[in-house]
Amino acid sequence: MTTTDSSPDMTSNPTPSPTRPSTGYALDVTVRADTEAMGHILAAVAGMGADVRRVDSDGTAVRRLLVACSGTDHQLAVRTAIESTTGVEVVAIVDATFALHEGGKLKVAPTADLSGPDDLAMAYTPGVGRVSSRIADEPESVWRYTGRSNAVAVLSNGTAVLGLGDIGPEAAMPVMEGKAVLFKQFADVDAYPVCVTGRTVDEMVAIGRAIAPTFGGINLEDIAAPACFEIERRLQAELDIPIFHDDQHGTAIVVVAAIINAARVVGKALSDMTVTIVGTGAAGVACALLLDEIGIGNIIGVDSKGVLHAGRDGLGEFKQWFVDHGNRRGVTGGAREAIAGADVLIGLSGPGIIEPEWIADMAPDSIVFALANPVPEIMPELLPSSVAVVATGRSDYPNQINNVLAFPGVFRGLLDVRATRATDGVKLAAARALAEMVPEPTADRIIPGAFDPGVAEVVSFAVSQAAVAEGLDRPMV
Amino acid sequence: MTTTDSSPDMTSNPTPSPTRPSTGYALDVTVRADTEAMGHILAAVAGMGADVRRVDSDGTAVRRLLVACSGTDHQLAVRTAIESTTGVEVVAIVDATFALHEGGKLKVAPTADLSGPDDLAMAYTPGVGRVSSRIADEPESVWRYTGRSNAVAVLSNGTAVLGLGDIGPEAAMPVMEGKAVLFKQFADVDAYPVCVTGRTVDEMVAIGRAIAPTFGGINLEDIAAPACFEIERRLQAELDIPIFHDDQHGTAIVVVAAIINAARVVGKALSDMTVTIVGTGAAGVACALLLDEIGIGNIIGVDSKGVLHAGRDGLGEFKQWFVDHGNRRGVTGGAREAIAGADVLIGLSGPGIIEPEWIADMAPDSIVFALANPVPEIMPELLPSSVAVVATGRSDYPNQINNVLAFPGVFRGLLDVRATRATDGVKLAAARALAEMVPEPTADRIIPGAFDPGVAEVVSFAVSQAAVAEGLDRPMV
Repeated sequence: MTTTDSSPDMTSNPTPSPTRPSTGYALDVTVRADTEAMGHILAAVAGMGADVRRVDSDGTAVRRLLVACSGTDHQLAVRTAIESTTGVEVVAIVDATFALHEGGKLKVAPTADLSGPDDLAMAYTPGVGRVSSRIADEPESVWRYTGRSNAVAVLSNGTAVLGLGDIGPEAAMPVMEGKAVLFKQFADVDAYPVCVTGRTVDEMVAIGRAIAPTFGGINLEDIAAPACFEIERRLQAELDIPIFHDDQHGTAIVVVAAIINAARVVGKALSDMTVTIVGTGAAGVACALLLDEIGIGNIIGVDSKGVLHAGRDGLGEFKQWFVDHGNRRGVTGGAREAIAGADVLIGLSGPGIIEPEWIADMAPDSIVFALANPVPEIMPELLPSSVAVVATGRSDYPNQINNVLAFPGVFRGLLDVRATRATDGVKLAAARALAEMVPEPTADRIIPGAFDPGVAEVVSFAVSQAAVAEGLDRPMV
Repeated sequence: MTTTDSSPDMTSNPTPSPTRPSTGYALDVTVRADTEAMGHILAAVAGMGADVRRVDSDGTAVRRLLVACSGTDHQLAVRTAIESTTGVEVVAIVDATFALHEGGKLKVAPTADLSGPDDLAMAYTPGVGRVSSRIADEPESVWRYTGRSNAVAVLSNGTAVLGLGDIGPEAAMPVMEGKAVLFKQFADVDAYPVCVTGRTVDEMVAIGRAIAPTFGGINLEDIAAPACFEIERRLQAELDIPIFHDDQHGTAIVVVAAIINAARVVGKALSDMTVTIVGTGAAGVACALLLDEIGIGNIIGVDSKGVLHAGRDGLGEFKQWFVDHGNRRGVTGGAREAIAGADVLIGLSGPGIIEPEWIADMAPDSIVFALANPVPEIMPELLPSSVAVVATGRSDYPNQINNVLAFPGVFRGLLDVRATRATDGVKLAAARALAEMVPEPTADRIIPGAFDPGVAEVVSFAVSQAAVAEGLDRPMV
């Protein structure tokens, strides 16, 4: 999610709500303890609000626990409590997240086993020379005889990483590795992180162009707006493989799927709805464009300086879109004014910047997507009862808007037909397929869960079909 | 191996020798046949000079054979013979090499399993954000918490691929994937092919610089001379990870190891020896520089226009080295003149360009490394008896000069200490360690075999030690 500064009229809510325990802050605890001592540990941990997610035993008195905490201070307190429990011998307590990341999260796995010269002669010289010659003579055979047909670059310069901002390519690496893990796990796509030092549009386009022969697609990731728009557009214009900025389109696909079903829940026509988007960075712009494709009646954008309207000067091309194609009643002011009367609020900005009374001014049966992560623009428990459907970016509330619902299946579908580009038609097909996975949506279930079976398959099938219908597929050789 | 044109005075030998069967041209044959019919197949295949390397059975009358042939025409003839054998039902006959390359030779394998939201919260958000923040605050921790510490880019623009020349990045992909397989198999290095469109030195330096944050080292591969020299030098000057052009240094390390032991076999001092290098492309230049480091008395270079001597104009920086530091007796003319009287001939040029009578003019107990591959500058069976030690690039003769003896261990050793660069000292340490693996060299064994156990470990240990001694290691965090 891209974070924008809060609007001048948005007073920050200082206490959005206590954070719940998450394995993102888990302790990996190994202790030697008898049954009674284990009981003391479990009671102590529970009493502190930490959550024991797993307990493993090797058949001796040694127990290994995964204890979810709600932050680093909480971790420290829980650790101290365990260490001081009577009858417990602590073998080791480590931060489970850092332990999991040691050495990185990816390996390269050969599919060919080389146990001697005969294997070497096939996988390497002289055999490999025959394969290279074939590709030189018949360029399309690269899709058959190399891993390009299943390879996606996760390309980032680290200029807009999660909510952390411009932390650079090295610090972006754990995120891109994580993305590659998700690609593999959810859709058997062989994604590889490519974290680069380029910062300007020209540099990033040059890098994307340069590495393209290795990959069947490029997933741009965590690149700051507005550079990300131009980088994607120029690369897609130059290259014959799909370019897909997940922060934009992954989010937009899931948001559009969720809006389609939320509209059904409240019984409103898409063409009658006004959608206010607070936060017009990469994700906000992409959501607006895809929502426009499904025929939303009116889309109002709000950036850190307030509503995007005809009186605003110096807006870039993408913010100007909201003036030229949205805000049909010419609203001015700040987020509060833009939210008043709207049917849908989509927050893609920062934590705690929306006040409950603003929401109360929305149209009846309002829909609120508060997607800042991990702390939403407004916590669901603070919403007035006039809100009919709520979504967040969090896994601990209903209706999690999670890009993992989209990008694995999107690339799987594109790679399956060796697609030459990613179009709006493809993205819409993905969004509609996701929406249709919930045939009878309710307020608590407008989209599938991230781990629901079959999501990537359904999305990928729809994407492949749409790509073929648009003639984006490449002949199989 | 880099190929240079033959010198004007080098008349090509039209029949270097018949090619032997290789699995690089193998057929993967599946037949249904009883014992008698199988006998007919095996007899027919053997009678045609093809070689049955493997036979597998599933317990029925179905047999699967791996039949090494000596070329594509031979493959066709063998296929026809099998198809027409009485009593044989052919299930399938495919080219084993192309079959092995289908879909590429590499996959990406996550080390973290994501079976539910708890795993996701550790490997991805919110947990991953904590790891990224740590790296942003403490940049050296990227070596601990990401795969960078074990990752090597195999970077190529496909301008000098094997003996195939400038076939471009897509056609280079099978070779770079093969290289990555070797890295993994021999030294557990996670190498990834990066085949790029850049052609100029500036473009290649920009690409190497850009992708550096992702990798712990860059293996340049199959980049044409002289651009490769400048690319490597500039990248190493800019970056704090090792840059190693394997076509140069991998070859040089193995050649130097083999020369050290060959000199012991013939009982000559290195400082007394004259080494003539025919072919002064990437590998030839690197061999000369590393041979100079071990104190070879005199090094003479020969390019496609003849001997490199003071009368030659317009030589680039690296060919000029042979004039300024080598050719101490001022030899002029062609390869024949440069070879006359030399103790060692190293051919890094093209097939069959050396005549037996030229070799007869070498010093007594001469050493001949004919490294053009697959067809050497002169076939070993054509050499006069005055030659004491012979090496080739082929696996079917003794003393195979194979880069796989060097590059896996070199990068393993560099990565193990998180080295900031690859120096001559490191390369020499690798060469000496390789030589020492054969404590009592003979004419038929001056270097280890590619599949001898422990080669990469020995090289890697020597490289790590040398890197630490030179202060190239990075503190462990």
